[in-house]
Amino acid sequence: MMKTNNNTPAAVQIAVIGLGTVGGGAITVLCQNSDVIAARALPIRVKRVVDLDAQRAAGLCEKLNLPQSIISSRWQDAVEDPEIDVIVEVIGGVTVARDLISAALKAGKSVVTANKDLMAAHGGELLQMAADHHVDLFFEASVAGGIPVIQAVKESLAGNRFSQIMGILNGTTNYILTMMCEKGADFAQALSEAQALGFAEADPTNDVEGYDAARKIAILASIAYNSRVSDSMVATEGISQISKWDIAYADEFGYVIKSIGLARFDGEMIDVRVHPAMIKKGHPLASVRDSYNAVFVTGDAVENAMFYGRGAGSLPTGSAIAGDVIAAARNIAHGSRNRWGCTCYQQLPIRPLADVVSKYYVRIQVYDRVGVFAAMAKVLGDCQVSMDSVMQKRRIDAEQTEIVVITHKVRHENLVKALNALTDLDCVVKVNNYIRVEDEDI
Amino acid sequence: MMKTNNNTPAAVQIAVIGLGTVGGGAITVLCQNSDVIAARALPIRVKRVVDLDAQRAAGLCEKLNLPQSIISSRWQDAVEDPEIDVIVEVIGGVTVARDLISAALKAGKSVVTANKDLMAAHGGELLQMAADHHVDLFFEASVAGGIPVIQAVKESLAGNRFSQIMGILNGTTNYILTMMCEKGADFAQALSEAQALGFAEADPTNDVEGYDAARKIAILASIAYNSRVSDSMVATEGISQISKWDIAYADEFGYVIKSIGLARFDGEMIDVRVHPAMIKKGHPLASVRDSYNAVFVTGDAVENAMFYGRGAGSLPTGSAIAGDVIAAARNIAHGSRNRWGCTCYQQLPIRPLADVVSKYYVRIQVYDRVGVFAAMAKVLGDCQVSMDSVMQKRRIDAEQTEIVVITHKVRHENLVKALNALTDLDCVVKVNNYIRVEDEDI
Repeated sequence: MMKTNNNTPAAVQIAVIGLGTVGGGAITVLCQNSDVIAARALPIRVKRVVDLDAQRAAGLCEKLNLPQSIISSRWQDAVEDPEIDVIVEVIGGVTVARDLISAALKAGKSVVTANKDLMAAHGGELLQMAADHHVDLFFEASVAGGIPVIQAVKESLAGNRFSQIMGILNGTTNYILTMMCEKGADFAQALSEAQALGFAEADPTNDVEGYDAARKIAILASIAYNSRVSDSMVATEGISQISKWDIAYADEFGYVIKSIGLARFDGEMIDVRVHPAMIKKGHPLASVRDSYNAVFVTGDAVENAMFYGRGAGSLPTGSAIAGDVIAAARNIAHGSRNRWGCTCYQQLPIRPLADVVSKYYVRIQVYDRVGVFAAMAKVLGDCQVSMDSVMQKRRIDAEQTEIVVITHKVRHENLVKALNALTDLDCVVKVNNYIRVEDEDI
Repeated sequence: MMKTNNNTPAAVQIAVIGLGTVGGGAITVLCQNSDVIAARALPIRVKRVVDLDAQRAAGLCEKLNLPQSIISSRWQDAVEDPEIDVIVEVIGGVTVARDLISAALKAGKSVVTANKDLMAAHGGELLQMAADHHVDLFFEASVAGGIPVIQAVKESLAGNRFSQIMGILNGTTNYILTMMCEKGADFAQALSEAQALGFAEADPTNDVEGYDAARKIAILASIAYNSRVSDSMVATEGISQISKWDIAYADEFGYVIKSIGLARFDGEMIDVRVHPAMIKKGHPLASVRDSYNAVFVTGDAVENAMFYGRGAGSLPTGSAIAGDVIAAARNIAHGSRNRWGCTCYQQLPIRPLADVVSKYYVRIQVYDRVGVFAAMAKVLGDCQVSMDSVMQKRRIDAEQTEIVVITHKVRHENLVKALNALTDLDCVVKVNNYIRVEDEDI
């Protein structure tokens, strides 16, 4: 970028590497709204686009009135161009993306990325590299799509000690659970419908098993607690075990079931996990439907705040990338890159899952005999699991019935012991499911 | 502020002027969380506090371990101190506050304010002054308390063309309407309860008549549409006319009644107003209860996003002020003040209220005679008011009954004409109320 004679900044020049759904959205926002961006901040010019699919690149450039001459299939053409100030990495994955971001940072370019996999696994290393080379590495789009939650936690709320971040961070699972909750669908039906509508991928593992949300809560926890949390530290459970009975019983008790990413800090250890949870119906997260995402933040000053919006999608994610590109460009124009850098100035321990304390809902299939409750109560008591309530629910057949137990707060390890011991009882057929009940801070 | 030899920034020094609820919250956050603020950003030191109430100032300083020597009763002691970098103005009002902010900006100090009255009336002038003196004027706390919505709209979402900002911007009215909705209270009861609990002032006019929300939507509209909107341009209606019947009928139709601040832009004119509105129950704003605030933002890239939290209160508002102080301090440390400045680079016309188009709910008290519907339908048709539905509701006495009409979209001017013409009908006793129905963009 150069200053012109009259002191108006010339365009900041950028390259977009990767023209898939997210990259296409980013470049569309930056081009179609270039007039308001220039007026609000400064002109931003797409000088280079990089994609292996030449046809896709050509089509996008034509649509956006960009010259075909800016297309390349080599990311090095962007990173090695001294006139390019900001690199937008939207190819995803952790190998090429890591190489190209490293190269860009070392070449003195600011980088904007939507890459949650990479940031959750290698964010610390890359942010350090950005600091070393006095450039910016922004990643708003890596968490919750278009929702500007990273800037909020990192900047606007920086005066807070955070005690909890709780988020609906995966649109696919939220869509599936909404369908199960509102239409009585079972998991398989809801997944099929989500796939048919494009809300779930052909291989839904990443979303359904919670791996995607784990990366996002790792990133949020790192920022909120100023301590590097990588996705491998996040205890993760998927939603495929949730049945329509769980949904129905939750409803009776005044809860909805959501897949949440949760990061708590008690002053000593970080408790970070992704799993289905029962949320009280009056909680703001409970009314987050369909594929929407939301992040509920608790700090000692702000109390509770929630950020809600589109957690995915071409243009919403493009909005987050555009915001980061504008911030990076503004920092270049004002000579103030690296104003933030990596905020992980400490290394806090992660609480082992065995020690995490929660309330639980447990659904148990039993033989309908005299003494079942007493036998179960003894086993639970022996394992230090205290019951809040126990209810007989639907009859399964002439011999079997289903019981639901809600526990008081209990260590996870004790709950697992109790469930194993229950399973060993003659009167118990099997433990059908257990789900955490997160009904505090409401 | 000075750099020390080892290149670590020395503390940025600030003064807090006004130690009431908001000022007390701000200084409490900045002092009690000074360690995390220093670690995340840079050290911030309260060098001066100013308040006319010496006892209050002394008590606060004692509580926060600040030396009594920093107390002054003259704001000039802060503004004229060359070592003070940032002035926090939290005295409120538009006279002294305007003088002291002007003086501080001219003295080269960045200013953080929570003053919505001042920003809504004189924001343009003050932001220009900040730009002229190359300093920052931040005002996150002026809208929606602790919710970081100004930074979001101004920075993170800067890539969007906004079509709508719709917010629950006043906690008092939201508390009253929540009580009316959930407990069947009438307006007077709910107001009394709100006053008893400290959610409403002894003179509730500012809140109840919508003036407070008008200032906030004026500020948000100015930012979103890059055009100065002052509170005098906002068409404003209060909630004192809302009856428990309106609440009950709204519920039947699937709506809740909220007092909203609304700013729309259709590419030509800004439509900006504060009034009660019926919101569909499934809309995220509908589940914002009690004294919580929320701002629902629609942009062409982000689609819909919502920001939710505490709209008032000592510590939540203090959180917003602390965030601004940190940003101002960071800009000083990085030599990048005035990165944003005033974003109102255009002057768009405000659509006259007469031309604003809405759907309406109208509650009409009539004599129960043959031909009432026909007579009403003719009058409405003559005024170009098209009906979506008309329903007979409760019987008031042997002779009178109440009718509810939901209109299609109609110009406000035509609706007012129609209501006057209805009132002139022999069969109509009176128009009891009308409320806009805002059920799009859901």
